[in-house]
Amino acid sequence: MRAELISTGTEILLGQILNSNAQYLGQWLADLGIDLYFQTTVGDNAERLADVMKTAMGRADLIIVTGGLGPTSDDLTKEAISELLGLELIMDENSLSSIEAFFLDRGKTMPEINKKQALIPKGAVVIPNKRGTAPGVIIEQGSKTIVILPGPPVEMQPMFEETVVPHFKKKCIGGSDVIVSRVLKILGLGESTVEERINDLVLQQNNPTIAFLAPKGEVFIRLTAKAESESAAEKLIETPEKEIRKRFGTFIYGSDNDSLEKAVMRLLKEKSLTVSTAESCTGGLIAKRLTDISGASESFMSGIVTYDNQAKMDLLGVSPQTLEAYGAVSEETALEMVRGVRKTCGTDVAVSVTGIAGPGGGTAEKPVGLVYIGLADHDTAAAKRYLFTGDRETIRWQAANTALNKLRLYLMNYTV
Amino acid sequence: MRAELISTGTEILLGQILNSNAQYLGQWLADLGIDLYFQTTVGDNAERLADVMKTAMGRADLIIVTGGLGPTSDDLTKEAISELLGLELIMDENSLSSIEAFFLDRGKTMPEINKKQALIPKGAVVIPNKRGTAPGVIIEQGSKTIVILPGPPVEMQPMFEETVVPHFKKKCIGGSDVIVSRVLKILGLGESTVEERINDLVLQQNNPTIAFLAPKGEVFIRLTAKAESESAAEKLIETPEKEIRKRFGTFIYGSDNDSLEKAVMRLLKEKSLTVSTAESCTGGLIAKRLTDISGASESFMSGIVTYDNQAKMDLLGVSPQTLEAYGAVSEETALEMVRGVRKTCGTDVAVSVTGIAGPGGGTAEKPVGLVYIGLADHDTAAAKRYLFTGDRETIRWQAANTALNKLRLYLMNYTV
Repeated sequence: MRAELISTGTEILLGQILNSNAQYLGQWLADLGIDLYFQTTVGDNAERLADVMKTAMGRADLIIVTGGLGPTSDDLTKEAISELLGLELIMDENSLSSIEAFFLDRGKTMPEINKKQALIPKGAVVIPNKRGTAPGVIIEQGSKTIVILPGPPVEMQPMFEETVVPHFKKKCIGGSDVIVSRVLKILGLGESTVEERINDLVLQQNNPTIAFLAPKGEVFIRLTAKAESESAAEKLIETPEKEIRKRFGTFIYGSDNDSLEKAVMRLLKEKSLTVSTAESCTGGLIAKRLTDISGASESFMSGIVTYDNQAKMDLLGVSPQTLEAYGAVSEETALEMVRGVRKTCGTDVAVSVTGIAGPGGGTAEKPVGLVYIGLADHDTAAAKRYLFTGDRETIRWQAANTALNKLRLYLMNYTV
Repeated sequence: MRAELISTGTEILLGQILNSNAQYLGQWLADLGIDLYFQTTVGDNAERLADVMKTAMGRADLIIVTGGLGPTSDDLTKEAISELLGLELIMDENSLSSIEAFFLDRGKTMPEINKKQALIPKGAVVIPNKRGTAPGVIIEQGSKTIVILPGPPVEMQPMFEETVVPHFKKKCIGGSDVIVSRVLKILGLGESTVEERINDLVLQQNNPTIAFLAPKGEVFIRLTAKAESESAAEKLIETPEKEIRKRFGTFIYGSDNDSLEKAVMRLLKEKSLTVSTAESCTGGLIAKRLTDISGASESFMSGIVTYDNQAKMDLLGVSPQTLEAYGAVSEETALEMVRGVRKTCGTDVAVSVTGIAGPGGGTAEKPVGLVYIGLADHDTAAAKRYLFTGDRETIRWQAANTALNKLRLYLMNYTV
């Protein structure tokens, strides 16, 4: 079973919104074991939509189309596809009542233009919409299945999960095979170094396949296996995963949905330790990421963002002499910040970050991207120099990543 | 001139990342007046990429391809396209030196596998990459122009702006019409209320068109005009924009690329005021957003994240009696937090947030989503109760938005 996604909407081509439907449906199809080979975005134009549908029907068995089901004249998905497939559009009384009720529930009368949303291609299965006016449809023609859903994610997603997925499962639309992916996440090594270290495995790959992703300064290794069941696919992944973990050790901080902050919070909880943060250039990003994790209050006590020098002195006890002699962005200041916050907040461990996120503020000796990161516990404190590249957002993100990773490695080695 | 975008990368089809390149390039092409009719995503497969290229060359004059220029074996965009076009790949010494220098600058030697990134199709123009190793290319064949750029946005975007756009302008590649959009951003009103308030304008729309977007608790009104020049398009937008601004007043916090944090930082700078933040459930998100803005250090002095009660007492001076009597999530606590941080950090204004972000922690009296937000200046302090809905991330985001908006409205009314 080969699938193809078609996203309709001129606003997507004009770049006014991100195509999150493609991502959502892509994830679902992978989970259902359905191969997705092409995704196309086309504007609100009947001719071009028909063109794209024709191409899709020539190379896919399952075509999912989103968008263009609204009441306005731009909304022409059902019309264009019905014409292409030679299907008559028939007024569906149930759908019409639902649309009228949708307006009544909000104290309004259904505008005339919404009536066309109740037109259904002859023989199609209606996909009810509880969060909007447009029903979707599932059309089966020969060996092809065509699904049409509304564009707004808040309507499309529940319709897909509540009606389309069960329909697929009932009709055994799905791979006979299941696809399972394992993503191993690496921080601290570059993409080429990572690939070289497992080049022999890459050359021999078959099932699972091995692919690389390099988002925001990290490297992900993705193993994708296809088998007749989830457990069989997991079994195929076991051996290469074990080998890759052996070769990378603690450079791998997690897998799949793990994040550095999840790993840190899990370790803090395990070891019953508390943490505080002192941030300058990362501006609260580390505290924010740690508190993204539900239950953070068990281990994260407080964070201090000292954006200016007075704050570093007043809130963290950094000495004026240190700031005078070495500057805010220095190993010495990072050290005093981390000792200061640990003591002030009374936590077991603490991290500090001070640096130049850019675009302004850099000099020859202290360029944009220069960051010092400190770590302290009850007995010791140390700070280290880093040089990150990229724009402001990237430098802040990588500094936060590195600080979280320092914490992670410390906690992994920690014994009571 | 008709354009087509091709995004390569199996990770996009598997839904592991959002396709932000398509949005970025879509916006640019609209700005350049180049019609974009199709965008396709295809995986790391030479045959399917060739297939998609063939289709594109049959219906477009300008084809922009992103992704697949890395050093690994999955990266095959140049190879597949060169083969399709019958162009030999030739080692470009300049590009090779640049790649070697990129590694040397980081204290490393170029790995062998990166060498292939310096292969350029015969006759192509090289697009230099200052932020990564892969150069891009511009290929002109007959009436077709093919641009190949790396996938990572932080590399692709500057390459597009610094080399591709000037190349287009020089070769007079562009449209006869220009498309201009204005997005007006609203916080504090629901989507239906917004639509109703300008329903008459929506019904009469022509050029510009009026569309609605509703991301994360805000409502955006988008006016899109097409004319023979940018100034003519801007003129078309003027009248409806003025009318809409009249009807919404300060509910509109900005337009186009404005954000609440940009608006706040701009107002703080204008009025020469400083701000500090005291955050509990938002965990540093407000400080992080304020410091996202370059030059934040002029106005943002410090932020304190007090995740637990002890921290609220020790760092912000919240009294134990208040916490005992009213709890951490209360108007009284929000008030003491905001007074405390303003005094401790010595700023002109301050905001505080305390609440229950969920999913755990809610009770009958104090449900998930309950948030108190405080604001203080030299003379007064006040806190207000809010109830947000959604998951943890949404509640934190909306709480931060509301706090930033309170600050914005305060600053707009502020006179020395």
